Amino acid sequence: MTNEIKIFCPATIANVSCGFDVLGLALESVGDEMVVRKTRGKGIRITKLEGQDLPMETLDNVAGVAGLALLSEVDYDGGFEIEIYKKIKAGSGIGSSAASSAGAVWAMNELLGKPLSSLELVKFAMEGERLASGVAHADNVAPALYGGFTLIRSYDPLDIIPIHTPKELFATVVHPQIEVKTSDSRKILKTNISLVDGIKQWGNLGGLIAGLFTEDYNLIGRSLVDHIVEPIRSILIPGFETIKSEAIKAGALGCGISGSGPSIFALSKGEDKANQVAGAMRKVYQKIGVDYDVHVSKVNTQGIRVISSKR
Amino acid sequence: MTNEIKIFCPATIANVSCGFDVLGLALESVGDEMVVRKTRGKGIRITKLEGQDLPMETLDNVAGVAGLALLSEVDYDGGFEIEIYKKIKAGSGIGSSAASSAGAVWAMNELLGKPLSSLELVKFAMEGERLASGVAHADNVAPALYGGFTLIRSYDPLDIIPIHTPKELFATVVHPQIEVKTSDSRKILKTNISLVDGIKQWGNLGGLIAGLFTEDYNLIGRSLVDHIVEPIRSILIPGFETIKSEAIKAGALGCGISGSGPSIFALSKGEDKANQVAGAMRKVYQKIGVDYDVHVSKVNTQGIRVISSKR
Repeated sequence: MTNEIKIFCPATIANVSCGFDVLGLALESVGDEMVVRKTRGKGIRITKLEGQDLPMETLDNVAGVAGLALLSEVDYDGGFEIEIYKKIKAGSGIGSSAASSAGAVWAMNELLGKPLSSLELVKFAMEGERLASGVAHADNVAPALYGGFTLIRSYDPLDIIPIHTPKELFATVVHPQIEVKTSDSRKILKTNISLVDGIKQWGNLGGLIAGLFTEDYNLIGRSLVDHIVEPIRSILIPGFETIKSEAIKAGALGCGISGSGPSIFALSKGEDKANQVAGAMRKVYQKIGVDYDVHVSKVNTQGIRVISSKR
Repeated sequence: MTNEIKIFCPATIANVSCGFDVLGLALESVGDEMVVRKTRGKGIRITKLEGQDLPMETLDNVAGVAGLALLSEVDYDGGFEIEIYKKIKAGSGIGSSAASSAGAVWAMNELLGKPLSSLELVKFAMEGERLASGVAHADNVAPALYGGFTLIRSYDPLDIIPIHTPKELFATVVHPQIEVKTSDSRKILKTNISLVDGIKQWGNLGGLIAGLFTEDYNLIGRSLVDHIVEPIRSILIPGFETIKSEAIKAGALGCGISGSGPSIFALSKGEDKANQVAGAMRKVYQKIGVDYDVHVSKVNTQGIRVISSKR
């Protein structure tokens, strides 16, 4: 029987331009690692947390809170210890809290013999998101748990639809080293939108979903347009318009804000193009003197995965 | 060389619940017939119009106006005569004007050796829609011309995406014999919607597109929800809520307003179910004493088609 596993927890891009609050995708080469082991003692303890300065108290840690939500619903007498090796920067907009929340519950489910469905795991992981941002959103934890693109068709009842992921789709993500809190970037959104903008948005979301299923990269690119949130949130991100236009010039299919920012993502067909886009993004931030990280990654179709396990 | 063709012009269902202004589908067994023939004389003449009381003056007739838009753009010295045999009732909400507009330009393109793309034909047919309702909408003419489900991803530039149509998808349409003008049913819509309702709407549209591509009938049904328009427009349609709940009880996947109404559509898996839904709808209108027509039809994947041709 496996008592301990080490897992990879992918970073994720939520919203994906036209899919505000409903769409997300998982990355392949950007993510955290976690070690989760069964203990005789009950409850959950975060025994190690490296890479980021985050609370280790179970009730203050997203992995702890998500894990407790799961523990309260399964038939298991023991508990878990969790070690978290953060590589995703907190507040970067690529699902740092989601990786920890989703990773914790995914690993626990593995160690317990998989009694729970992916949909149930999303519900528990959402409790971690509630702690992190005040809103139990699912658009990062769902792609982390399912892999690929996932659509949250509905929150009530929760309905998650896996969307086909074209093989040559790569993401480039640039993270300008400024802080934008999810809660702040939500506050500036308007509570009403014009019907005209709404029609454009659902037209584009329909186009994106169709482009993903038919592997029509050009259609994917044409659909990566956000009439609702990007015009407002992009003002919080230095150099956004320049980064976007340079990414498109370098061959990206489309470019937008990752989650609530400040990271900016672009999607490209093929790794070479994604690397060229990364180069173009670097140049912009070097020129305007903003510190940054850049990641290039295939879209991850597997989600969280086991790196190693111990009896 | 073919000088005259007789064509079938399908009725269409626009909006399809969650796809307001962007989605439409074509019907197989409900539609008009038209005869279009080349003439030496220039211009367009409507020489016959049976079945409905509609204007025959070229500039007052949607087929005439759409045809003139086409004529102004092609290299052709002659003109056309058009006979229209209406079976779709004007103002019923299943694309009566669209069938005539789309039929006219489709037939002319056939007779001229197909110099124009389907996308170009949509643009000409939209001029007929502008005459009919004051708005050059494309969500009826596009499915009439392309067949199946079509998504209008964008109006500017016009971008039409054919969506895969599951084989066993049948529509039931009930037309209560009351008049609702498209222009009136547009006026009662609000110009703003809440962001929360918008998110629900694009989540459902994404789910519907995914359900169509994966032939997931259950997902199609779950996605046929309209948070934006149906709550407002349905008050113009007698017995709407009862029809809808009885259709669902009879096994329909979903049910909503066809276009701007007053027709109500339901989608079902298989013809038997669609017939049962028709029976349930009939009962409701018989009980409350509203005159009605009911149609059951497969979703038409071909669009407009030639019935016969003459040299």
